Amino acid sequence: MKKDEFVKEITNIDDDFARWYTDIVIKTELADYTDTKGCIAIKPYGYSIWENIQNYADNLFKKSGVKNTYFPLLIPESMLQKEKDHVEGFAPEVAWVTEAGEEKLEERLCIRPTSETIIMTMYKKWLSSWRDLPFVYNQWCNVLRWEKETRPFLRSREFLWQEGHTIHETKEEAIERTLKMLEIYVDVAENFLAIPVIKGIKTETEKFAGADRTYTIEAMMYDGKALQLGTSHYFGQNFTKAFDVKFQDRDGKQKYPYQTSWGISTRMIGAIIMAHGDNRGLKLPPKVAPIQVVIVPIAIHKDGVKEKAEEIYNSLKNKYRVEIDLKDQVSPGYKFNYWEMKGVPIRIEIGPRDIENGVCVVVRRDTLEKSIIKLEELENYIDKLLNNIHENMFEKCKKRMVQKTTTASNLEEFQNNMNEEQGFIKAMWCGSSECEAKIKELTTAKSRCMPFEQENIGDVCVCCGKKANKMVIWGKQY
Amino acid sequence: MKKDEFVKEITNIDDDFARWYTDIVIKTELADYTDTKGCIAIKPYGYSIWENIQNYADNLFKKSGVKNTYFPLLIPESMLQKEKDHVEGFAPEVAWVTEAGEEKLEERLCIRPTSETIIMTMYKKWLSSWRDLPFVYNQWCNVLRWEKETRPFLRSREFLWQEGHTIHETKEEAIERTLKMLEIYVDVAENFLAIPVIKGIKTETEKFAGADRTYTIEAMMYDGKALQLGTSHYFGQNFTKAFDVKFQDRDGKQKYPYQTSWGISTRMIGAIIMAHGDNRGLKLPPKVAPIQVVIVPIAIHKDGVKEKAEEIYNSLKNKYRVEIDLKDQVSPGYKFNYWEMKGVPIRIEIGPRDIENGVCVVVRRDTLEKSIIKLEELENYIDKLLNNIHENMFEKCKKRMVQKTTTASNLEEFQNNMNEEQGFIKAMWCGSSECEAKIKELTTAKSRCMPFEQENIGDVCVCCGKKANKMVIWGKQY
Repeated sequence: MKKDEFVKEITNIDDDFARWYTDIVIKTELADYTDTKGCIAIKPYGYSIWENIQNYADNLFKKSGVKNTYFPLLIPESMLQKEKDHVEGFAPEVAWVTEAGEEKLEERLCIRPTSETIIMTMYKKWLSSWRDLPFVYNQWCNVLRWEKETRPFLRSREFLWQEGHTIHETKEEAIERTLKMLEIYVDVAENFLAIPVIKGIKTETEKFAGADRTYTIEAMMYDGKALQLGTSHYFGQNFTKAFDVKFQDRDGKQKYPYQTSWGISTRMIGAIIMAHGDNRGLKLPPKVAPIQVVIVPIAIHKDGVKEKAEEIYNSLKNKYRVEIDLKDQVSPGYKFNYWEMKGVPIRIEIGPRDIENGVCVVVRRDTLEKSIIKLEELENYIDKLLNNIHENMFEKCKKRMVQKTTTASNLEEFQNNMNEEQGFIKAMWCGSSECEAKIKELTTAKSRCMPFEQENIGDVCVCCGKKANKMVIWGKQY
Repeated sequence: MKKDEFVKEITNIDDDFARWYTDIVIKTELADYTDTKGCIAIKPYGYSIWENIQNYADNLFKKSGVKNTYFPLLIPESMLQKEKDHVEGFAPEVAWVTEAGEEKLEERLCIRPTSETIIMTMYKKWLSSWRDLPFVYNQWCNVLRWEKETRPFLRSREFLWQEGHTIHETKEEAIERTLKMLEIYVDVAENFLAIPVIKGIKTETEKFAGADRTYTIEAMMYDGKALQLGTSHYFGQNFTKAFDVKFQDRDGKQKYPYQTSWGISTRMIGAIIMAHGDNRGLKLPPKVAPIQVVIVPIAIHKDGVKEKAEEIYNSLKNKYRVEIDLKDQVSPGYKFNYWEMKGVPIRIEIGPRDIENGVCVVVRRDTLEKSIIKLEELENYIDKLLNNIHENMFEKCKKRMVQKTTTASNLEEFQNNMNEEQGFIKAMWCGSSECEAKIKELTTAKSRCMPFEQENIGDVCVCCGKKANKMVIWGKQY
C-alpha cells in the first residue's frame, strides 16, 4: 500500500462530514456494522477508549460517594407505565420480549431504554428510614432504544452507558447531587477528552421524559453542530410518588424522597472523533488514547536499529501506553500514515543516523510538528508534550466554538446566521414552546440549553419579539 | 437490635442449606429479588465483589493477550440457527424480541444466551489472511437464559459474565488458548477466591452445545454438592465452517480457523458464599472482600477513642480496603455481629484500656481467634494475617473436598456413598452415555468431569462393569 492510500480511502472532511465520520469509524477499526440492524460491534481499539473513559469517570464517581450496582435488563410493561410522562417519552422506542423459554409471556417485558422505573421499585423495597438515605447508586450497562436512523456511537439502537440513580432526604441535597454529577461530566469532557463544553439547563421541550429539570453539557463538533455529551436530571418527587417510595423522616412522618439520575454513554467516542479528527484520520486526546506513543524504527534491518527502538520502548512502557511497530512487510512511510490515521498522539522515529547522534525524531499528531530530541531527555519531553497536546487540542476546539457562535436578535438574523455558518446561536427566548417549535421548523436548529453563564444580549424574544429574560444557545444537533 | 439477632435471622446452615444460602444473599445485602421474575438486582456489596473479580481476571486476560470488545445483545433467529448442535442446546431457553418501535419485527431477535453465533458473523467479515490471526477477543456483558427454577447468582435468568471468543490458525494454538484460559480460571478460583478446584474435561453429554471439547473447573460447596466455576471450550472448525469464516493461509490456500470460547460469571459470587460461609454469615476471602478490615471503637464517647480509631483507619486506608464503624445508635456487640455476618476478614477493636496499653484487639473472621497486637506492629500484622486467612480458608475447603470424596467400584457402592454423605465420587466409566444417564437417574449425581489427574482406581465401569479406562468425578450439582 502506498504512503497516502489511507488518506485517499477517507472521504474529505469538508466534502462530506457524515461520510468522513463513518469512514473513520470503520477504517480506524473503532467499530463495525453488524447483521443486527442498527447495532454495532465495538472493536478492541474503540472499546479500549471506552474502558479508559469508564476508568476515569468511575474513579470520580466513587470519590464522590457513588456505589455500583446492577439491575435487570427487562422491565415488565406495567412497571414502565407507572410514570405518565416517562412512558410517553420512552414507550415508542422500546423493544419488547413477548416469548421466552418456548412460551408466550403473560406480560410483555421491555428491554430497558433507561432504568428509572425498575430501580424505583427496588428503592421502595429497600428504603424505610431517613437513616438509609441517600441511595447513590450507578450501573454500567447496555440499553436499547429503537431508533429509526442510526449512526455508530452517536445513535445506535443498543449502546453502552452508565446510569446513576439517587434518592435523597431533601430537595437541596438532590439538586446538589444533580449538579455535582454535571461537574464530573465537565471534568471528563474537558480534562480527559479535551472537549470544551457549555453547561446549562434544557428547556421544557427538551428535558428528559418525567424529569423536573435536565442539566446538560453541550459540545460543538468540527462541522459546527452540537452534540449532547452528558445529562443530569432532577426529578423532584415525580417518580418517588408514582412508585410510592417513602421513608420515615426525622420527625417521624412518612415522606417521599427527592430523586436524580444522570448518564454518559459510548456517544463520547463519537464526540472524540468529530471534535478532534481531520483528513488524516482520528486525533486522540492523549489521556484517553489506547496508544499514546508509537515507536517506528527507520531502516529496521540496519545494525542496532531494532535494538535501540526496543530500548526506547522498554524505557517508556511503564509510564505510557506505548506500541512499537516492528512490521517488516511495510515501509516507514506506510506506518507513519497508519498511526496518524489511528490518531496516536506522539510518534517516535529512530533510524541509524539518529542513533549516531544520540537523538530521535518526535512527531506530534495534533500539529504534525517534528522535533529532534536527545534520547536522555526523551522521557521528560514526552511527559510535557502529552500535556501540551491535550491543552492545544482543547484550545483548538474552544476557539472553533467561539468563532462559530453568533448572536441573533430577530428571526431573520437567526436564519441568516444558521445558513451562513452552521454553529451555535445565542438568542433571547420568551420561554414559550411555540417559539421554540417555530425556530426548529424554520431552521432545524433546536435549543441546546439555557447556559449557566447568561449574558446580557437583549430583552426580547428572538422569535416573537415579546419580553424575554432567558438567553438560549441554539444549534443543529446529532 | 440485640447482639445475636442477625444470627437468629439466618437459617442454620445444617438444617436447610438452601434457605441459609438465600438468607445470606438477602441479609448481607449482596442482592435482592426483583419484579422481573427470575432476575436479581445486585446491590453495592455484591457488585463490589464482582468488580474485584473482574479486575483480577481482566488483568490476567490482558497479560495473556486478550482484548476487550462489545457485540450486540440481540441475535437474529436465522443467525442462531446456523450451527445445529448450538441451536438445539440454546433455543429452548432464549427470550425473543418480536416487537420494537411499535412495530412487529419481520424476524425474531433473541437476547444472547451466549455470543458464538454473532461473533462468528463478525469474524467472517474481519478475517482475510493468516496475518490477521489470532483474534483473541472478550466481552464483559449480560446474557439471558430462560431457566425454570432460579436462584440468586447460581441460576439467574439474566446474569453477568465474560465470554471470550478466539480463532486461530492451527488446532494446536487453539487448544493451547483453551487450556491457558482454564489455568487463568484456576488462578481466579484458587489464588483470589480461596476455592480449590478440580480441572478436567466434560463428557460428551455435559459439554457445551456445539463444542468439540469442554474443559471445566469444578468446586465443592459446604454441603458436598458441586459447582461448575468456569468452562473453556474448544470448537475445532464446527462454527467456522457453519459460519464460513475463512482465511488465506501461508500456502495461499483458503482454510477455516480453529475456535475457542470461555467464560466465568457472577455465579462465582454464589461459590464464595457456599464454599466459605457459616452460621454467622458470609466469610469473604481477603483478596475479594470489598472491606478487608473493619475498625470498631469500644466506648466511643470516652476521651481519645474515636480519634485513635480514626488514626488507625488513616494509617491503613491506603494499603487495605478499610471501614470504620462510628455509628453511635448501636452497641459494639451489635457491630461485631454485623461485620461478622458481612464476612469482613479482619476486625480491629480499640477501647480506652487498649489505648493505655498501646495495643488493639484483632479478630479474624475465619477462626474468630483474637489477638492483642501492639499498635506499631499492626500494619505488618494485618498484611500477614490477610495472607494467612486466605491460606487457611483455602486449606479448609481443600480438606472438605478430600474428606467428602470417595471412590466406588460398582453401582451399589456408588449409591451408598451418595446417600451416606453427599460429596464427590471417583469412579471408572466406560464412556457410554447410557451408563452416565443411568447413574444420573439412580442417584441424581452427574458426571462433573474427567479430571486431568487420572488415578488408577480400577479398570471396569462402575455402572455396566465393562472395560473402562476413564476415571470420572461424579457429584450432585447446583
